Amino acid sequence: MNPAQWFTEQVPGAETAFSLKIKQKLHEEQSPFQHLEIYETETFGNLMVIDGCTMVSTRDNFFYHEMMSHPVLFTHPEPKKVWIIGGGDCGTLREVLKHPSVEHAVQIDIDERVTRLAEIYFPELCASNHDARADLKFIDGIKWVKDAAPNSVDIIIVDSTDPIGPAEGLFGEDFYRDCYHCLSEHGMLVQQSESALYHMQLIGEMREAMSNSGLSHLQTLFFPQCLYPSGWWSATIAGKTALSAFRQQDCANKIFDTTYYNVDIHKAAMAQPEFFKKAFPLK
Amino acid sequence: MNPAQWFTEQVPGAETAFSLKIKQKLHEEQSPFQHLEIYETETFGNLMVIDGCTMVSTRDNFFYHEMMSHPVLFTHPEPKKVWIIGGGDCGTLREVLKHPSVEHAVQIDIDERVTRLAEIYFPELCASNHDARADLKFIDGIKWVKDAAPNSVDIIIVDSTDPIGPAEGLFGEDFYRDCYHCLSEHGMLVQQSESALYHMQLIGEMREAMSNSGLSHLQTLFFPQCLYPSGWWSATIAGKTALSAFRQQDCANKIFDTTYYNVDIHKAAMAQPEFFKKAFPLK
Repeated sequence: MNPAQWFTEQVPGAETAFSLKIKQKLHEEQSPFQHLEIYETETFGNLMVIDGCTMVSTRDNFFYHEMMSHPVLFTHPEPKKVWIIGGGDCGTLREVLKHPSVEHAVQIDIDERVTRLAEIYFPELCASNHDARADLKFIDGIKWVKDAAPNSVDIIIVDSTDPIGPAEGLFGEDFYRDCYHCLSEHGMLVQQSESALYHMQLIGEMREAMSNSGLSHLQTLFFPQCLYPSGWWSATIAGKTALSAFRQQDCANKIFDTTYYNVDIHKAAMAQPEFFKKAFPLK
Repeated sequence: MNPAQWFTEQVPGAETAFSLKIKQKLHEEQSPFQHLEIYETETFGNLMVIDGCTMVSTRDNFFYHEMMSHPVLFTHPEPKKVWIIGGGDCGTLREVLKHPSVEHAVQIDIDERVTRLAEIYFPELCASNHDARADLKFIDGIKWVKDAAPNSVDIIIVDSTDPIGPAEGLFGEDFYRDCYHCLSEHGMLVQQSESALYHMQLIGEMREAMSNSGLSHLQTLFFPQCLYPSGWWSATIAGKTALSAFRQQDCANKIFDTTYYNVDIHKAAMAQPEFFKKAFPLK
């Protein structure tokens, strides 16, 4: 393996690494917040790397973006106002705006450069950036939520990087408490929650912080994500109150295409592996 | 990354690679059939590598071994006779023998050295090798099935390496036809069927070979498997006749422990991703 031809991400703690063969480096810069790289890979299309971690590839981003958006949107009874904290590649925003009930979707990413690079290298993810319902803000998501009025949003999607660096606060109790206060009556939060094979301690700490903040009825979803450590990723939904029932009929009749998600996959993602059930029994 | 401290598997075609940090190489040999290596890794316990491909690790083998055995065994109405073609690490055999209905489980792996090394480096997987119901044969699985009498087995588990090298014939129509003939009335075969992200062409060819052989009611299961290419693996069940219903109550009341598998995971594994449903519509 000639290191010059491969991008490799080493996973600290797990002592594993995932590599993609590259054709060329397309771009590299240090933004005010992060180190950003874009590669053209042999088989995964374009690849964005932030602070040395693979973030998004053309080929396999559909798993993550669909699973961060559709399960929570088809669980809320009528999601009108959605905030995406992070998500600067705009892929989650695109999925959210596929839902006709959504009237206003705000993407709040601290780093404008992520979005500007996505517009160039992942234009398909940015296809809905000019939708009249879309609102892109490049400010601190933690402050945005802290300053928001009570009862001002139906769903908060925390589409963050790992809890090291700029995203650390997005896994903390203070942030979740602020989210709780600005969620509307049936409001829900969904947080990308790393790998259940590699990061059980972090998941436990996140769940405790969520519960302490007032959020409840935690439900973890599991899905494949080749690009991320262990290839097996999770997202955790938490409710301001009890989660509403999955709008299965609306999902079955959805007017938009997906690549991974459907009614059966929605239900499947909710299944808790035996070791996970034992670690986090239903309360 | 110092190459001397890492074991790396490059995935041909996918142009990706997965690496594990190693403490030491414990063993290496060329058997009559394959090149075998054993490593002690930093965080995955011991690792067996066959012909350069990661086969089994102490830490994450539970996904694969549980999903290759329990779903099919809890689908058959009363599995008494089970054959495992391949499976030389004995992990699938151990799971099969957890089912009290099983009277006779034959493991047929062409390479005795795999089992001898598993006994040393993965003793927990070999815990049931001396069960009175266990029968370990080190012969060619293709010939075993070809020579078998009709109606002589309830479940055939094809726990093979990739369809390159010794296992190539295990993905072929002739082999499946021989399996069909020796399966009993409600007989089922389950075949490890690679990654739906990387190997859709191979899965299509395998499904066609199965269907041409007389096997029917194909059902693909999906599960995480960090060690294998893309981190997302599959197994495909095929029936001699229509598959029986999942014995959900028996599964809920199972008298043995699992780490990943349970009733909900069984159902979840059956969910077909949207792109997979489109590629292989139910007939």
